[in-house]
Amino acid sequence: MNQNYIKADKWCIIEEDFDKENVKSSESIFSLGNGAMGQRANFEETYTGETFQGSYIAGVYYPDKTRVGWWKNGYPEYFAKVLNAPNWIGIKIYINEVEFDLATCRKVSHFKRELNMKEGCYTRSFEAVTSNNLEIAVTVKRFLSLDIDEVGAISYVIKVLKTDADIVFEPYLDSGITNEDSNWDDKFWNTTSASVSENRAFIEAHTMKTNFQTCTFMQASLSYNGKLISAENGVQEDDFVSLKFKQKVKVDESVTLTKFGGYTVSRNHPSDQLIAVANTALDSALSLGFDGLLKKQKEAWASIWEMSDIVIEGDVKAQQGIRFNIFQLNQTYLGTDSRLNIGPKGFTGEKYGGSTYWDTEAYCIPFYMATKDDKIARKLLKYRYNHLEKAIANAKKLGFSNGAALYPMVTMNGEECHNEWEITFEEIHRNGAIAFAIHNYYRYTGDYSYIPEMGLEVLIAIARFWHQRVNFSEDKEKYVMLGVTGPNEYENNVHNNWYTNYLAKWCINYALTQLDKVKNGYPDDYHRIIGKTKLTDRECEAWKKVADNMYFPYSKKYGVFLQQDGFLDKDLVKVSALPKTDRPINQKWSWDRILRSPYIKQADILQGFYFFEEDFSFEDLEKHFDFYEPFTVHESSLSPCVHCIQAAKLGRMEQAYNFYLRTSRLDLEDYNKEVEEGLHITSMAGTWMSIVEGFGGMRVIDDKLSFKPQIPDQWKEYSFKVNFRNRIIKVNVTAKAVTFELSGSKEVSIRVNGKKVELYPDEIITV
Amino acid sequence: MNQNYIKADKWCIIEEDFDKENVKSSESIFSLGNGAMGQRANFEETYTGETFQGSYIAGVYYPDKTRVGWWKNGYPEYFAKVLNAPNWIGIKIYINEVEFDLATCRKVSHFKRELNMKEGCYTRSFEAVTSNNLEIAVTVKRFLSLDIDEVGAISYVIKVLKTDADIVFEPYLDSGITNEDSNWDDKFWNTTSASVSENRAFIEAHTMKTNFQTCTFMQASLSYNGKLISAENGVQEDDFVSLKFKQKVKVDESVTLTKFGGYTVSRNHPSDQLIAVANTALDSALSLGFDGLLKKQKEAWASIWEMSDIVIEGDVKAQQGIRFNIFQLNQTYLGTDSRLNIGPKGFTGEKYGGSTYWDTEAYCIPFYMATKDDKIARKLLKYRYNHLEKAIANAKKLGFSNGAALYPMVTMNGEECHNEWEITFEEIHRNGAIAFAIHNYYRYTGDYSYIPEMGLEVLIAIARFWHQRVNFSEDKEKYVMLGVTGPNEYENNVHNNWYTNYLAKWCINYALTQLDKVKNGYPDDYHRIIGKTKLTDRECEAWKKVADNMYFPYSKKYGVFLQQDGFLDKDLVKVSALPKTDRPINQKWSWDRILRSPYIKQADILQGFYFFEEDFSFEDLEKHFDFYEPFTVHESSLSPCVHCIQAAKLGRMEQAYNFYLRTSRLDLEDYNKEVEEGLHITSMAGTWMSIVEGFGGMRVIDDKLSFKPQIPDQWKEYSFKVNFRNRIIKVNVTAKAVTFELSGSKEVSIRVNGKKVELYPDEIITV
Repeated sequence: MNQNYIKADKWCIIEEDFDKENVKSSESIFSLGNGAMGQRANFEETYTGETFQGSYIAGVYYPDKTRVGWWKNGYPEYFAKVLNAPNWIGIKIYINEVEFDLATCRKVSHFKRELNMKEGCYTRSFEAVTSNNLEIAVTVKRFLSLDIDEVGAISYVIKVLKTDADIVFEPYLDSGITNEDSNWDDKFWNTTSASVSENRAFIEAHTMKTNFQTCTFMQASLSYNGKLISAENGVQEDDFVSLKFKQKVKVDESVTLTKFGGYTVSRNHPSDQLIAVANTALDSALSLGFDGLLKKQKEAWASIWEMSDIVIEGDVKAQQGIRFNIFQLNQTYLGTDSRLNIGPKGFTGEKYGGSTYWDTEAYCIPFYMATKDDKIARKLLKYRYNHLEKAIANAKKLGFSNGAALYPMVTMNGEECHNEWEITFEEIHRNGAIAFAIHNYYRYTGDYSYIPEMGLEVLIAIARFWHQRVNFSEDKEKYVMLGVTGPNEYENNVHNNWYTNYLAKWCINYALTQLDKVKNGYPDDYHRIIGKTKLTDRECEAWKKVADNMYFPYSKKYGVFLQQDGFLDKDLVKVSALPKTDRPINQKWSWDRILRSPYIKQADILQGFYFFEEDFSFEDLEKHFDFYEPFTVHESSLSPCVHCIQAAKLGRMEQAYNFYLRTSRLDLEDYNKEVEEGLHITSMAGTWMSIVEGFGGMRVIDDKLSFKPQIPDQWKEYSFKVNFRNRIIKVNVTAKAVTFELSGSKEVSIRVNGKKVELYPDEIITV
Repeated sequence: MNQNYIKADKWCIIEEDFDKENVKSSESIFSLGNGAMGQRANFEETYTGETFQGSYIAGVYYPDKTRVGWWKNGYPEYFAKVLNAPNWIGIKIYINEVEFDLATCRKVSHFKRELNMKEGCYTRSFEAVTSNNLEIAVTVKRFLSLDIDEVGAISYVIKVLKTDADIVFEPYLDSGITNEDSNWDDKFWNTTSASVSENRAFIEAHTMKTNFQTCTFMQASLSYNGKLISAENGVQEDDFVSLKFKQKVKVDESVTLTKFGGYTVSRNHPSDQLIAVANTALDSALSLGFDGLLKKQKEAWASIWEMSDIVIEGDVKAQQGIRFNIFQLNQTYLGTDSRLNIGPKGFTGEKYGGSTYWDTEAYCIPFYMATKDDKIARKLLKYRYNHLEKAIANAKKLGFSNGAALYPMVTMNGEECHNEWEITFEEIHRNGAIAFAIHNYYRYTGDYSYIPEMGLEVLIAIARFWHQRVNFSEDKEKYVMLGVTGPNEYENNVHNNWYTNYLAKWCINYALTQLDKVKNGYPDDYHRIIGKTKLTDRECEAWKKVADNMYFPYSKKYGVFLQQDGFLDKDLVKVSALPKTDRPINQKWSWDRILRSPYIKQADILQGFYFFEEDFSFEDLEKHFDFYEPFTVHESSLSPCVHCIQAAKLGRMEQAYNFYLRTSRLDLEDYNKEVEEGLHITSMAGTWMSIVEGFGGMRVIDDKLSFKPQIPDQWKEYSFKVNFRNRIIKVNVTAKAVTFELSGSKEVSIRVNGKKVELYPDEIITV
C-alpha cells in the first residue's frame, strides 16, 4: 500500500480519495469486530478489483492438514485455520441494469472511509460516474452490534444525481467462499440449506471435519421517500440466496437499503435452532431499527471508552494511534466467552491461523487486567488450565514423561498447530510466559484463588517440562538447555538462550514457592493436587538442583549476559550500519544470512529484563539495553513496546517516544509492509503498556500500585485509567504535574516516584 | 518387509515363496537398469495387491513446485522430481476370460524370483491356481539391453496344467501413470498420440514444463508350438494402447509371449523422429531375437564383471552383497552420457528426487575411477563444471557476491532443488566434496589436464564462497563458520562444524596451490581464467588469511576435535545404552530430541579423517574413532563404509567386517526399513571402498598405488581388480599371502605395506 495515506484525527480513522492500491490495506485497517464476529472492510457491492474478502466467526476453525516440505517426527497432523465465513454483507447493485462496481467506474470522487472509534461505526461515502455514465452519491454505514453480538447492520444510501435511474438492490448471503490461507485447497464449508422467507434469508452451512453448524442470515428492506418497497424473488441457489428490490429513483432523491445480518452458531445454540435464534436476533434488531441499534452501539462504546480511553493532548497522531489500538483490542476480545482467546490478527485476516499464541500471556493480559473486571484475565488463565491435558499429551509426543507439559505455540483447542521444527519444538519459552502470567495476575489483582484451584497444576507440569528439558553438561558443570529458539526468531536451534534458561529457573522456583504457599494455606487443594500429580519431595529436590545450577552465558568483556552461546562469534555490525535497501531483512535477505547475523527480530534478553526487572539493577538494564538495542531490527510487532518501556525506564524519552510511535502506528503506517494481510492485534496491548508502564511507569511493587510518570516532549498532557483491585484510578500527566483521581468508595495507597501517596475517593491528588 | 527373506547365493539374488508383504521390497531389490532406463520389478500382468510402480528414463524429470510449511527467502521455486515414466512392460492376461492376478489366485506355489547378476537378467517363475480354478505354470524373463539401451525384452511363458485353457495376452503401453512423490498432484505427463501398427504400438507423451518428448514403444508376438499367432485389435485410448493375442492352449503345452519395448527420447533424438527411431531400435532387437539379445546381454555383463568383480571365498553372504552393489552401480551409471549423474536411488524409486548429491564426489568417483576408463570420472567432474554458472547464481541468491559458488544439495540441471533451510542453506560442505573430487581425480588418474581446462574455475568459485561464508570472531580471534549442517544431519545450524571448517581451509589452500601450478605450467589457461574470474592477488591473500586462521573446536580433556561448538554440553550417553526399541531414532524419536542428543547419523569428523588421512596420525585417528564411534547410529546409508575403512585401518577387523556386512547388505537385509522405496545406490560405492580401501588398504601415496591388505577371519580369500592409470592390477588376498597380477604391456611400481614392489606384465607377485 501507499504508506501515510491515513489522515490524522483524534477519534476517527480516515481515508480520503479512492486508490485501488490501498483497498486491501484499508480492508484491514477499517475492520469491524464485536468479540463474536469480525468483518474486514470489504465493499458491500461487487468489486472486481484486488480485494481480500474476510468475514470471521469467533471460535469457528478448520483443522487443515499440515503441509511441510519434509516431515519430522513430532509434527502435528493438523493446523487449525481461522476460516473465512459465509458472506452476509453483500449487496449487488444494478443501475439501469448495469452492475455497479467501483473498479469499473468512469470516475470516483469525494471518496471517504471513516471509522468512528468513539461510536464503533464505519462509514464509506463517495460520488461516482458509473460505467454506464450515471452519476450517484453513496453513503454506507456499517457496524457490528455490541448489544446483539450475532447481528451487524448496514445502511446503504444511494442518491441519484443528474438523471433519474432504475436501481436494483440485491442483498445476498453467499457460502461459496474460500480461504486464501489453505494448505491443500480443501473444501472448508458444506452448505446444507438456503432459504428465503419474506424479507429474510438463511443459509445453513457447517465446517468440514470440525462440524461447526452455522446459520448465516439477513433481513433487508428498501425505503424510498418514506415508503417501504416490497422485495421481489431473488436468486436461490445451493450456496447463494438473495432478495431483489427495484426502484426508479428520481434525480436528487435518495433510496436506502437497510440490511441486518450475521451468524448463529452451534457453539452457542442447539444446531436445530439456528434459524429460530436468527429470527429472534433479527426481531430484536428490527424492533430497535438501524438508528436505535446504532444508538445502543454508541452507548456501549462510550462505556468501554469510559474505562479504557487514553487521552493525549498535543499530538494527534499519537492520540489516534493509541485509540486505534484500544479500539481494535476491544473489537477482538471482550472476555464474554471463556472458550475464546486473542488471535494475533484478531478478526482482520487469516494468517497465524491459530487463535492463541504466547502473545496473550506476555502482552494482552496486563491490558485486560487494568481496563476490565479481573474476571476477564482469569478467563484467559483458565483457558490454559482447560488445555493442560493436551499440553501434557503434546510433551509426551515429543518424548517427555511424568506429566510434563509443553503448551502449543499456536492453538485453537489446546492442540499444537504449528509445524516448523525450530518453532514448534524449540520455541518453548511460551511455557514460561504462561507461568509468568499466573504470577502477574496474582500480583496485579491480588486474587490468589486461581493458584490453588487451577494454576498450581499448570505450574507443576511446566516445572516438570523444564526439569526434563535441560541436561547436565559435564563440561560446564551446570545445567544447559540445548536446541531452543528464543523470542528472537532470527536465531534457531541455539544453546542456552539466556531468556529461556532464565524463565526455566524462575518457573521452577515459582512453582516450588507456590507449592509451599498452597500446602500451608490451602491444604485440601494441596492434597488434591499432590494426589493427582503424584509429585514427590524428591522430584522437587531434583527441580531445585536444576534451578540452582542453571547455566547463563555471560561476557566478562562486555559485562552482559549473552543472548545465547556463541553470540560474540558473530560479525557485530550494528543495525545503523546496514543500508536502508537491506531492510526489512526478513524480506531482503536469505534465511541463512539472517541466522548468521547478529540482528535481533524482537526483544529477547530485554524481554526477560522486562518480566523480571526486580532482579536487575538500573545499571544492568542500561548495559544490556546499550549492548542489544543496536542489533535489534524490531521486525516483530511485539518488539518496540518492550524497548519503549525500557528506554523510558532509562530516562531516554526521545527514543521511547519513537518506539511508541512505531508500536502505536505500526498498522496505520504499515511499517512492516503487510497490513493488507490483517492487523497486529496482540502487539496493540504492547502499545497500551508503552504508555501506562513505559511513560506512566506503572508497576505493582509489594502489593501496591506504583508510578514514575514521565511525558514525551511532544505531548502537552496525557491521562489514563486503571482498575486496580476494583479501584479506578485516573492518572493525568503533564510536564509540570501528575494528578491522581480515585473513583469509588474506598481509599488506596499508591507509590509515586518511590513515595507513598494516599488516594481518597473522588479527591484529586497532585504530585 | 520381512527381513532376511533373500536367499544367499554367489551370483543371484533369490526370493522363494510368494509373500504379499515382500512385493514392494522385492520390486526394489530386483530392479533392472541399463544406464539409460530403469524398471522396478513390477509384475507384467495386473496385480491388485500393494505395489509401487516405477519405470524411469534417465535424465527425464519434472520441476515440481516447491512445497514448504513456511517460505524462507532463498528457497528454490522448484524441486526436480524423478518421474515414473509410461509403462512399457505391461501384459494383461486372461485365462478363460478371467483376468489373471497373483493377488486373487487361490494358490501360488514354487514362486521364485531370481536376479542373475552375472548375466543381467531377471526371471520370475511360479505355479498358480487361478481364481477361476485353472492351473498354470509361468516363467517370465526380463532384461534391459546394454547393447541397445533404448530396449528391454520380456519373454512370458505360460504352461497350462491339468486342463486346456483359452489364454489371452494383452501387451500394452500406458501413459496414464502417476508419481507417488508429487507435491501438488500436478499432472506430469501429457500424451499426444497413441498408435498401433501391426505388432507394434507407440505412445508419444511429453513431460509438462520441461517438455521432454518421449515415445514409449513395444513390439509383441505370440508363439505356440513353433507357430506365430497373429495379433487382433486391442484397445486404443488416449493414453493406453494394446494388442491382443488369443490362443487355446492344450494341457501340458506352453505359449510364449515375447515383448520388446522401451523409450526413445528427445534428449537423444529430434522429437519428430521418435517413432522412426523406435522402429529402428525394434528392428535391431528383432533381428537378434530374444535369445540373441540375451546372449549379447551376457557378453556385455561379462565384460563389466571382468573388470569390476570382487570375488570373496568362504562367505556367500558377503560375496552376494558386494556383487549386488557392483551390479546396481553398473545398472545405474555407465558413463556414456555426460549429462547424467548418479542418483541416490538410481532407477529404483522416486525419492531424493534429484539426480545429483555430494554422494557422487564423495563416494562414487573412486569406484568409477578404479573400475572404468578414467574418462568416466572426468565426465562426472565436468558435470559440475557445466553447472558452475548456476552454482554462482545460487550463491548470489543467498547473498554472496563476486563469483562465489554454492553448488546445490540436490540437482538435475544445476539448479538447487532442496528446500529445507537447514540443508539447502547450511549443508554447504557439499562444495568441499566437489573440490576434493578434483584433487582425488588427479591423485588417482594422474590426469592434470582437467584442472587448467575446467577445474580451477570451480576451485576459485568455491574458495570465494568459503572466504565469504566465514566471519572473524573478535572473541575467538579466529575465523568462524556459523550456521552450518555437517554430514551428520542430526545436528542443524551448528557453529564451527569441524569437518566443514576443515574442508573450507583445505579448499582455499588447494585452490591457491593449483593457481600457482597452473600459472607456472599452463600460462594460457591461467590468463584466460584470471581474465574471466578477475581474481586478484589481494583476494588470494584474503583467502589465505582465512585458511591460516580458521577456528577448530577442540577438547583438551579428550584430546579430540569437537564435531562442533558445544558438543561436550550434550548428555554423552553412548548408543550401546539406548534401548533397542528406540532404534532407529529417526523413526522413534521426535526431531528435537534427536537434535539435542549426541547421536551421529553418519560419519562427520571421521569423514574428514578419511578424506585427509595424511594430515593425521594413527593415534589421532584412534582417539577420534574411539570418541565418536560410540555415538554413531549409522542411520545414513553413507556411514558404515567410512567406519569400515577406519576400523580396518586401526586393525579392528571384526568391527570392520560388521560394518562391511551392514553396508554391503543394507538393502538385502533392509537395515533401514525402507527398501520398498528404492535401493541405496550411492552408498554401494562405499561398499566397494570398504573392501578395496578398507580391507585392501589401497591408497594413492606420492603418485603410487599403495596397499596394506588384511582379510576378515570369516573369509578364505578375496580378490579385486583396479585400473590405475591404464594398468589393470589384480589383487588377491588370503590370510597367508597377497598376490598382485598386472595385465597389459607396461610395468608399474606399487607399495605394499610401505615397501616398494615392482609389478611386471602378466607376472604374479606374491607378498
